[in-house]
Amino acid sequence: MAIRLDYLTPGFEEAFAAFLTTKREVSEDVNAVVRQIIDDVRQRGDVALAEYTRKFDGLDFSVTGMAVTADEIDAAIEAVPSEVLGALKVAAVRIEAHHARQRPKDDIYEDSMGVGLGSRWTAIDAVGLYVPGGTASYPSSVLMNALPAKVAGVERIVMVVPANGGVINPAVLAAARMAGVEEIYRIGGAQAIAALAYGTATIAPVAKIMGPGNAYVAAAKRQVFGTVGIDMIAGPSEVLVIADRDNDPDWIAADLLAQAEHDVGAQSILITDDAAFAAAVEAAVERQLRTLPRAETASASWRDFGAVILVPDFDVAVPLANRIAAEHLELALADADAMIPKIRNAGAIFVGRHTPEVIGDYVGGSNHVLPTARSARFSSGLGVLDYMKRTSILRLGADQLRDLGPAAIALARSEGLEAHARSVAIRLNLGGEG
Amino acid sequence: MAIRLDYLTPGFEEAFAAFLTTKREVSEDVNAVVRQIIDDVRQRGDVALAEYTRKFDGLDFSVTGMAVTADEIDAAIEAVPSEVLGALKVAAVRIEAHHARQRPKDDIYEDSMGVGLGSRWTAIDAVGLYVPGGTASYPSSVLMNALPAKVAGVERIVMVVPANGGVINPAVLAAARMAGVEEIYRIGGAQAIAALAYGTATIAPVAKIMGPGNAYVAAAKRQVFGTVGIDMIAGPSEVLVIADRDNDPDWIAADLLAQAEHDVGAQSILITDDAAFAAAVEAAVERQLRTLPRAETASASWRDFGAVILVPDFDVAVPLANRIAAEHLELALADADAMIPKIRNAGAIFVGRHTPEVIGDYVGGSNHVLPTARSARFSSGLGVLDYMKRTSILRLGADQLRDLGPAAIALARSEGLEAHARSVAIRLNLGGEG
Repeated sequence: MAIRLDYLTPGFEEAFAAFLTTKREVSEDVNAVVRQIIDDVRQRGDVALAEYTRKFDGLDFSVTGMAVTADEIDAAIEAVPSEVLGALKVAAVRIEAHHARQRPKDDIYEDSMGVGLGSRWTAIDAVGLYVPGGTASYPSSVLMNALPAKVAGVERIVMVVPANGGVINPAVLAAARMAGVEEIYRIGGAQAIAALAYGTATIAPVAKIMGPGNAYVAAAKRQVFGTVGIDMIAGPSEVLVIADRDNDPDWIAADLLAQAEHDVGAQSILITDDAAFAAAVEAAVERQLRTLPRAETASASWRDFGAVILVPDFDVAVPLANRIAAEHLELALADADAMIPKIRNAGAIFVGRHTPEVIGDYVGGSNHVLPTARSARFSSGLGVLDYMKRTSILRLGADQLRDLGPAAIALARSEGLEAHARSVAIRLNLGGEG
Repeated sequence: MAIRLDYLTPGFEEAFAAFLTTKREVSEDVNAVVRQIIDDVRQRGDVALAEYTRKFDGLDFSVTGMAVTADEIDAAIEAVPSEVLGALKVAAVRIEAHHARQRPKDDIYEDSMGVGLGSRWTAIDAVGLYVPGGTASYPSSVLMNALPAKVAGVERIVMVVPANGGVINPAVLAAARMAGVEEIYRIGGAQAIAALAYGTATIAPVAKIMGPGNAYVAAAKRQVFGTVGIDMIAGPSEVLVIADRDNDPDWIAADLLAQAEHDVGAQSILITDDAAFAAAVEAAVERQLRTLPRAETASASWRDFGAVILVPDFDVAVPLANRIAAEHLELALADADAMIPKIRNAGAIFVGRHTPEVIGDYVGGSNHVLPTARSARFSSGLGVLDYMKRTSILRLGADQLRDLGPAAIALARSEGLEAHARSVAIRLNLGGEG
């Protein structure tokens, strides 16, 4: 049974504030062992990779090779049901089309003084994409991570995926092919992150590493950060559904459970203005749980982190939603559009009764890699910009330097940086050598 | 004497690769003491802040107060020489105008299926800006960090600056006023970062913390990351100058020294195609060092990390520059413009003989907070986007859900996420409860 909070009850603010800071993850401290693995891969390269892969994944590269071959990818595609292939294609086309709109434009201009200024965007040369093995090996995540890189123009996209017991999800390989990823290695864990960051004889290093992983992968990404870029470390997923009484309680319950089945640390929150509707949703959750394959995970998540928040009206829901800063926000309201401009903090907003969050997980076109754990207050979902970087450009002629130089000299001297002052002054014959 | 590398010498590649990975910073491990300070401020709030400030900065809040008053800022402005105030104003106007062009546009549209999609940008609600005390208390950095926040529309910008012995650089307060920052506290170190991240009775928490600081500040930012956002942790500054023989060696030497005077870990690199020119620049560096106030720092930096790289022609300089991925890249070449499109990795490019990097530090208009330590391979300088976040919006009606739903169901089932499948299926009367 999820927690119940009533806005009109004394003590609500304290209870809500405590709810907001509830930790939903026990972070294992695996830093020492990860440090060792990374150092080992840096020193011994492919040999270390082979040893760790034999040990952790039960795989022998002398039999399988490290790289996944084009023939293997072809065979994998044959093995994926055509319905799933078709669905992946629908998703890929929509994701690519949406992300193409995110491509930034260069801005090169001359200001009224004649100073040339510019912002020039370039793709990152090479990125690594980590794909987990086992049950969390999701083809949809391959599309969501790789397609923005493709749209950005990244020339080299390297995928790593552990093949526990030799097996890679064929749909993952099919998704990789659709996203234009052809360089794939059957490695995982901290050793794969180390190989991507520092390179080995087989694997050239990349400049940035993306994608989700377990505690070892997350710790490894943190440790190699600086040598390479990394994406945000994602926490357990969450949804906030703001729903009025005119919804079918079963639809809303299904949405709460879709989030809860991800992980015992996932979080599903309902905000509504009607106690009877809230009770009906809660009852529907219990009823639907009975037939759910992942009922154990979903019921633990709902019990430990689920919440039903009763509000007197939806105006007070807005500041609550902004404080929750949910990864996914569903507005199942008669006039959902009216609330959008008031929402400041949310990873993604799903508008109206016919937009379950799950559409965004797969085929909506927007990205499903979104900020978790209230980080939508300060960060954004994955996009094309995450695969690019901006170089600023400045160009002065002798005239512009004469106009602007004295101000630069004054500021440099006021900051005690005389060599700064002189590098301008010497060009203006103002006593560069003091 | 800086290191000399000659592209045509056997062993160049090994020497260059080793040069690239040279560490220029000893990172002190202050994590344990920083952890203690943060925990203490979280628990005891203002009381802990007052104690640490008395201990580290010799300041008594019962005398000075924690907040800097508007009267103090007025008085500080009076104390700044008018030439410096005028130069700050020139800088502020130019920085604001350039950054205004970085403001992102929302993109809300309906695709051919009738699916509503959108990217909506909002400013971060509140940001904290750390400004170091002492000699590194730079008004230019206040402008560079605060003005993009102002342009982004951040409603609350909080500045913290330690007042060692009671003193805050008046130009820093003047710059804060120009950038619209009025909430300023005389605190610093890890305790200031903790107060910004978790809040105290006096200071409401922020959502993101920006700005440079010492090892304690950097460690504290890393530790509070997740609770709040942070900017990149900057390393020592660096410049790469690509110069032909037609430059005045004294101008180029002055540019190399402007970078070197920052820090003993700073790095200045010259790439040229003419050995005699290289020797002339080296001689000019030695000569100019004699009269430089910060000669000790600059000569240590030049000796330990400076480099002169001789190339047979400037075509081979391009891949070297892209591997160096310098924070600052000067192109002091006859046809500098021709090289720009070939440069993939650089924080900022300064084009031509009349654009010393120092102009970009102060009055060019572009930001001087740029990626260091080769991170221009995967990241960008500070900009307006760093103070905003993007929320994606998805809107389907019943028709669109009927069209797209089956693909989502197929993918969810193939990923073993039945509750995901049902949250769509239930809306399509396709057996939501299995």
